[in-house]
Parts: sequence; structure tokens; C-alpha cells
Amino acid sequence: MRVVQKYGGTSVGTLDGIKRVARRIQSTYAAGNQVVVVVSARAGITNELIARAKTLHPHPDEREMDMLLSIGEQEIIALTAMALHTLDVPAVSLTGAQAGIYTDVAHTQARILTIDGDDIARRLNDRQVLIVAGFQGVTPEGHTTTLGRGGSDLSAIALSAVLKADLCQIYTDVDGVYTADPRIIPRARKIDTITYEEMLELASCGSQVMQTRAVELAQKYQIAFEIRSSFNHQTGTFVKANAHTLEAPVVTGIAVDKNQTKLTISGLKDKPGTAAKVFQALGEGNVSVDMIVQNIGREGFADLTFTVSRDVAERAEKAARRALETLGGGRVEQTGDVAKISVVGVGMRSQSGVAATLFGCLAKEEINIQLISTSEIKIEVTIAISQADRALKRLHTAFGLDITSVGDRSRFPMK
Amino acid sequence: MRVVQKYGGTSVGTLDGIKRVARRIQSTYAAGNQVVVVVSARAGITNELIARAKTLHPHPDEREMDMLLSIGEQEIIALTAMALHTLDVPAVSLTGAQAGIYTDVAHTQARILTIDGDDIARRLNDRQVLIVAGFQGVTPEGHTTTLGRGGSDLSAIALSAVLKADLCQIYTDVDGVYTADPRIIPRARKIDTITYEEMLELASCGSQVMQTRAVELAQKYQIAFEIRSSFNHQTGTFVKANAHTLEAPVVTGIAVDKNQTKLTISGLKDKPGTAAKVFQALGEGNVSVDMIVQNIGREGFADLTFTVSRDVAERAEKAARRALETLGGGRVEQTGDVAKISVVGVGMRSQSGVAATLFGCLAKEEINIQLISTSEIKIEVTIAISQADRALKRLHTAFGLDITSVGDRSRFPMK
Repeated sequence: MRVVQKYGGTSVGTLDGIKRVARRIQSTYAAGNQVVVVVSARAGITNELIARAKTLHPHPDEREMDMLLSIGEQEIIALTAMALHTLDVPAVSLTGAQAGIYTDVAHTQARILTIDGDDIARRLNDRQVLIVAGFQGVTPEGHTTTLGRGGSDLSAIALSAVLKADLCQIYTDVDGVYTADPRIIPRARKIDTITYEEMLELASCGSQVMQTRAVELAQKYQIAFEIRSSFNHQTGTFVKANAHTLEAPVVTGIAVDKNQTKLTISGLKDKPGTAAKVFQALGEGNVSVDMIVQNIGREGFADLTFTVSRDVAERAEKAARRALETLGGGRVEQTGDVAKISVVGVGMRSQSGVAATLFGCLAKEEINIQLISTSEIKIEVTIAISQADRALKRLHTAFGLDITSVGDRSRFPMK
Repeated sequence: MRVVQKYGGTSVGTLDGIKRVARRIQSTYAAGNQVVVVVSARAGITNELIARAKTLHPHPDEREMDMLLSIGEQEIIALTAMALHTLDVPAVSLTGAQAGIYTDVAHTQARILTIDGDDIARRLNDRQVLIVAGFQGVTPEGHTTTLGRGGSDLSAIALSAVLKADLCQIYTDVDGVYTADPRIIPRARKIDTITYEEMLELASCGSQVMQTRAVELAQKYQIAFEIRSSFNHQTGTFVKANAHTLEAPVVTGIAVDKNQTKLTISGLKDKPGTAAKVFQALGEGNVSVDMIVQNIGREGFADLTFTVSRDVAERAEKAARRALETLGGGRVEQTGDVAKISVVGVGMRSQSGVAATLFGCLAKEEINIQLISTSEIKIEVTIAISQADRALKRLHTAFGLDITSVGDRSRFPMK
């Protein structure tokens, strides 16, 4: 089998961690597999380097940031190769450039254009183990680039696609994807299989196990992969196109995001194009809008409420205000920090009871719902932050996601 | 003017150091010069990385060591470019590979094959300042290589040659080359100009201001350069082909090396080829022999004495013993740690009094001379380590090298 493994920053954060990772690679290799390993920088080093850069320049040049940040992975590929040599595994380290990962010139957020996998494929056939620096690439002109936070996941998925890997394993410090955050819901269950769509909804809802772009790429090329822990030998969560059996559950998982702020625009003239202009201005101001709800208010005027990440709330307010000035009417104000609860599951496509269960459960708890937004595989509501953990707990039970007995960590039959 | 500047690890060892270096580069650039800067890794990081590697493997693979060590310079080029951006200097960082520095595949000790300077030349004509990672290169196949300890000096000299620089400045933490180690001889003078040959003799005698290979390369391509401090604005020492005026001093400088061990081989059959075989064995054992003196001893037998660096004395003894076994006679023993005094000067070629002054001075001090070795521009003797500092002090005075008054730091008129 041809296997791609990715190890994150906490797995290779110490020399002992690197030794542990090396033993895991060795056993995969010794079983006769062809092995490509993608590694991240050790946890913390990226922030250290950014701090150093900001001492020298308040807004460091992005090309130079890429030059600087890419050393984090370069350190780890060399050390990992050395640890493997100690175990008599013929490992060779490769930078992003040496691995043939070509990107555009969008420094710090580069997109992969193409991967020339010929050298890696040849080396795999020579029984070499390749240790590839994640997160980084090179432009066709030879400039070093990086792929944005969590970009090592993207490197691993892209290499799996190009190399037609039989197996792609994303090793991290959690056992997999859970039905809810286990720090809040001790009875949360590890999900055994999940679709790309569900994974994307859960990831964008604050359940940040993996970079969103990486999941999107996996979906595009239909790369099945497994998210699992490098600290034990348990099976993790498989992410793939058709994850569920006929008896699929309605709801796969519930995410909570307590980092949202609500903004309300009132007195907006209710005519075509006004809302579009407001959101265009927000987009140009680099504000990513999350939920949007519009009500018709006073005669001929609309009220528009939307949520954004708390850290961009000020910027969102300013951008909206500028848009309203050109529209000649309406005012905008921040209307409070809120928590967003996202109930996600492919099963709800064909089941009508999800919304009823959700609203009924929250009503029984006397939790007030502010905004509601729905898609085919998701229902989202905002509520008061103070009620978020209680809501999550009750919903987790209401949707039948709780572990029912000790040791019942597997909900679906193992593949 | 086209200027190449090299800054060593102590100059860029801290963020404040990088800021200071950036201001110096800025003023050179603002004066209208084209500027290429070669930087080292910050002092200490190389040893840190080596220690980390040795935790994972007792003898790390050399290709992987190069992959690991090259991150040291990569960090500094990015940070230096950022510091220059703060000063509005359009700086661009380049790795060894991006600078077109191609080497052979002798990892950790690679030799430069060629430099493709076209990109740098084009950027210089665009008024960009290039910050090049010293110490590193790339093989034609794309493997990262390093040039050995002090390799940044080599990078700077090689770039000066290829770019036909008008000026090459090696910035370090000392003011230049001195007539003797100023820590031992407070009255030592900074040398204003020195020939390549003298510089090589002094460098190989423990006065390690600069990498020997870099001086050899400068001599080969007749690159004049200046060694000066990045911590002040004093003129340093110019190293070039014809350094001296007609009134050239006889002796340029005196070096002392207290890190030598003497070995004596006795009972060696005095016939052609025996000595050669011993030294061939030492060479194969990777032992670099320094001074060699042979005496005819008992009838038909020769005594051979040589010195080596103390840290390879054990290895030298073993290698010599093995050689003697195949020669069927003779024995080898370490005959004590010694200090080597080297009196260096182009002027002594045409002057006969140097040896007489040297021996006379040491005799007056009742310092016993053990071994003597001479070349056209150097006389070396070994003496007891305990007498080395006193010998250096008396010789420095005897050869007229002392500063004669406060403020007299310049012996030759400034250029």
C-alpha cells in the first residue's frame, strides 16, 4: 500500500515526540508499505518566529514571512529523518520545493498549482521513506511560499491525490472528530465515519480539528482520510464521501461557537440590491459574515441581522456604516455577543423532525432562540453565551449522541 | 560602487544586532552603492541544532545535517530584510539556492562549483539590496549543502568574485587582524594591510579571524577585502596581494597556538620511504600534521618528531602505531603538550636577521626551543606552554610591533 501520514506540531513538538513518530513510521514501513510523511513545525515555533519578526517590523513583508516561517518545518523534516536512520529506515527529507509542490505567489496564503510527484514516486519505488515539509511550497520562479495556518493538512491531502495514495492518515493530538467538544460534553462520542460536508460544517463551526481548505480539497479529489491520534493506537475518524449506512443517524455532531457578535442594520430601504451592497462592502472590508437573517420591519423598511467573528466586529460595523452612507439611510449597531449552536448531519436531509427536536428541547430549557439559519445538512441557532453549554448538553442527549455505557466509544461497526 | 558585506554570527546574534546591521547597510545603500549582504546564522544556533541532532542519532546523516543547519542563515536573511524594510530599503532575502550558489555534493564540506549571478546582478541594477544566506549552497540536483565552519566568509568572497564587486567587507566582532592576540598582548597593533599569504599563515596558526578556504579563494581570484568590526566605524585590516610599501616591516604578526601535542617516533629505519608511509597513514586517519622535524639518531635509525592538534593526538598515535607495525620497527609516543609560536611576515624573505632575533630573544629569556620549522614568510618554534605568553610578549617587542604611544593604532597611513 502507498500511505501518506501527516504529523502535527504537538506530535513532533519535542525530541521524544519525534522518536515516537519515527517508531510509528518504521512500523508502517516495515509492514511493506510505501510511506510518505508530511510534518508540521513543532508547536509554538511559528508564534515565536512571528513575534521576532514583529519586533523588527510592525507588518513584515509576506515574502519574508514565508522565508522565515518555512524554517520551522525544515528543522523537523531533518530531525525526523535522523530519528528514522537510527531505526535503520532509509528516510530522506524534502522541503516543499524539493517535493515539487508548486504554488501561486500569494505569500502566506498560497494556493497549490501543481505537484510534480515523479521524484517522490521514483524514490518510493526505491523503498525510500520521504519526509516532506508541510505548509510550504515554491513558486515556479523559486520563491518560498506557505499555505496558511494548518497548511500541512493541505500538503498531505494534495500529495495523497497526486501520488494516488491508498491511505491518508492525519495524526494529531485528539482521537478523532467527536459528536461535540469532549471538554464540554464528557459523554461525547468519537465519530467513526463522517462525510466531507459534515466535516466542513463542523470545522467551520469551531470544531477546528483540521484546516477547512484541506477538507475541501479532499472532497474535490475524493480522497478518503483518517483523523487519528499519534499518542495511542486507536482507530480514528474516517472522512469520506459516503460515510453512512442505511441506518445512518439523523444528526452526526453538534458544534458550539461562543466567539460570535451580532450586528443589526435597521431602517434599510426595502428595495432590491440594498442588502447586496451592504454585504459587498463587508466583503471588500475583508469581513467574513456568518449567519444572516432579514425581517421586514416598519413599512417599506427592512431590518437585517448578521453575525461575525468577534475579532472583526469593529471592522464590520465601520464597513457597514460606510455602505449605509452611500445608500442614504439606515443605521448599524452591534447587538451583543452570542453563541452559535450548529446541529450537523447528512441524515437530516430526509428527516423532518430535526428542527422540531431542536426547538422543543431549547424551549423546554427556557433558552431563547435569537437567529435561525438552515441548510440541507445543518441547522444553526444563536443563543445567549451563558446558556450555550447547557444547550449543547441537552441537545447532545436529545439527538441520541451520548455514550450509553462505558467502553462504548464506537457507534458504527468498524470498517 | 558595487559592495559585498558579510556579517558574522555575533553581529546578527540578537534582534538589536540585526537592527544595527540594518542601519549600516542602509547608509551604504543610501550613499548610492549597489549592496549585496551575506549573513551567518546567529551565534550559538549551529551548536544548538547539532546538539538536537545528536540526541536523535550519534552520527547524523550529512545530507540531513545540511538540511538542518541551513535554517540558521535562512532565519537571519528574512529578519534582516524585514529590519531593512523598516528603514525603507528595498531588501530581498535569498537562500544559497536562490542566490545561484551551486556546489558539489560533499555535504557539510561542500565546494562551490559555480555561481549564477545573473539574477542578483539584475536585481542590483533595479536598486534592490540582496540579503544572501551564507554558508549554504545547492547541488545541481537541488540538494541543500553547507560549506563547512566559517563558510559564510567563502560565500562572500565567491560572490565578490562573480559579481566583480568593487569592495568586499567582512564584518566581525574584532577590529581587524592584530600583530598578536590583543588578549595576551595589550600593546598589539591592528595591522592595516596584510598579504593573502601572511593572512593564511596567521589564520592557520590559531589567529582564527577568518576561514582559511575563504582567504585562499580570495588569493586565487585576487579579491581584495577588508576585515572590520560591525560594532564601531573604524577602518579594519585590508587583505590584498601587495600589501606593503617599500618600507615594509620585516615581521607582520606573531601567532601563538597552545593547543598542540608533540609526538615522537624513534627507532625508525633510516631508508627512503619510511617517513612517507607514516605520514600517509596519518593522512588516511584524517590527522592533519603541523610541524615535522627529523633527526638522525642511533646508527641507521631516525627520530621523527611532529605536532598535531591536541584533540587528534590519540588518533594520531594509533595511526602511527599501525603504520610502524607494517614497517616492522620503531615506536611512537606522545612527548608532551607544547605551544607553537609563529613569526610571520613577507618582509623576512629578503631579511636574514629574523631567525637570529627570534633565537636571541628567547635565549635571553632562558626559554628552551624544542622544534624549529621555517618557510619563506614564517618561522615557527615550539616551546613549553607555560612560557608561551612571556615569549610572545618579548618577541612582539623585539620585532618592533608594540604600539609606541596611546592612540597610535595605525601603523601605515590610512587609505
